[in-house]
Amino acid sequence: MREGHIVKSFDEALRALDDAIVRMGGLCERQLGEAVRAVIERDSFVAEAAIASDKQIDALEREIDDMVVRTLALRQPMAVDLRQVIGALKIATTLERIGDYAKNVAKRAITLAQVAPVPPAYAFSTMGQFVQKMLRDVLDAYAQRDVARGDAVWARDQELDNMYSAVFRELLTYMAENPRNITACTHLLFIAKNIERIGDHATNVAEMLHFLVTGKVIGAERPKGEATSSAVVRT
Amino acid sequence: MREGHIVKSFDEALRALDDAIVRMGGLCERQLGEAVRAVIERDSFVAEAAIASDKQIDALEREIDDMVVRTLALRQPMAVDLRQVIGALKIATTLERIGDYAKNVAKRAITLAQVAPVPPAYAFSTMGQFVQKMLRDVLDAYAQRDVARGDAVWARDQELDNMYSAVFRELLTYMAENPRNITACTHLLFIAKNIERIGDHATNVAEMLHFLVTGKVIGAERPKGEATSSAVVRT
Repeated sequence: MREGHIVKSFDEALRALDDAIVRMGGLCERQLGEAVRAVIERDSFVAEAAIASDKQIDALEREIDDMVVRTLALRQPMAVDLRQVIGALKIATTLERIGDYAKNVAKRAITLAQVAPVPPAYAFSTMGQFVQKMLRDVLDAYAQRDVARGDAVWARDQELDNMYSAVFRELLTYMAENPRNITACTHLLFIAKNIERIGDHATNVAEMLHFLVTGKVIGAERPKGEATSSAVVRT
Repeated sequence: MREGHIVKSFDEALRALDDAIVRMGGLCERQLGEAVRAVIERDSFVAEAAIASDKQIDALEREIDDMVVRTLALRQPMAVDLRQVIGALKIATTLERIGDYAKNVAKRAITLAQVAPVPPAYAFSTMGQFVQKMLRDVLDAYAQRDVARGDAVWARDQELDNMYSAVFRELLTYMAENPRNITACTHLLFIAKNIERIGDHATNVAEMLHFLVTGKVIGAERPKGEATSSAVVRT
């Protein structure tokens, strides 16, 4: 009876931790959506909303940190349970970083709304939606401990990297065509990079989920298609 | 007697954890030094060495993760001790990210070594040395649990942000002057951004150190001088 009670308490603690992660993830999703929309629609108002969300996300991370420490101290979980708790801690850190990148996108969106000309940003729309879906899927996968779905997100990172590489090269050519594009394109470059990094972090969450459920490290090395650090555009 | 023995064992576990963190930090320092030198001297050989270090750093992070989980499971530390162990875990995550940024700098250094012309990179030399010193100091501060020294690193981030802003603006003007500079300057922009992020992460380590020793969150909000996300260069 007593043992059952202890186990139940730990389960409750773990459920509370999961709820907090899902809430934090939901905030990140919304913030990312706003940040991407702010870039595409050149809407500073939406960008400000995305920037403001960051404080909530940071506060939730601290809350999760506290919950983890409290759970470890009071429940002293072992093996699989311990992996769940440490996993939650690591996922919270990753979500906080996603929030940081989204905030940075929003900040640059405000700047972009003030400069002209801004070259077409269609590609971001696709990239932005793609990453939003990656994030949503990996959070759902986490909530349901659905490893297959998490692994599918992991596999999609390659496609995102290809999208980013295309955007990167396109922006360099806009800059080469007209120096007046340089300021806007530089911000767009960093925006695209931030979105690509958010995808990387969604992929990291998928890796953590895989490990916390199976106890095994996912696949071999993750395929990397992002090769812009070696991109050269001849002008 | 028995209690004394248990405490001693935990101290040993903690010391082993600290040693691993200091080793990991040392690798990051060396890698950053190589990456910065690779950019300045356009030396692909040194860049390759910096890239190769990343696997060692990642391996050490996994080792530290394992040590943390083992320490939590076997020693079941409470309060201050628990804070030390969780602190080590978070610092290892941060160092791994520093390694990632340094690797990215090194990758771009290889590309830069292949393109011409590359505008003068004096500013990076200063920025690079500045960040290396921040990292070295914060790691020494951690090893000695020297909060005052860690706090001093935290305070220096503002100066780094100012350096980065100056570099950012300078690079934009080079691009505007001559489209042939665009490829090189874009890589230099990302390199400078990566170095600035490494400084941010050194600052995060200082924050973690402050918290793990004092149990209090450092100062008020960290001052932010980095305003390039709103920089506009008129061309």
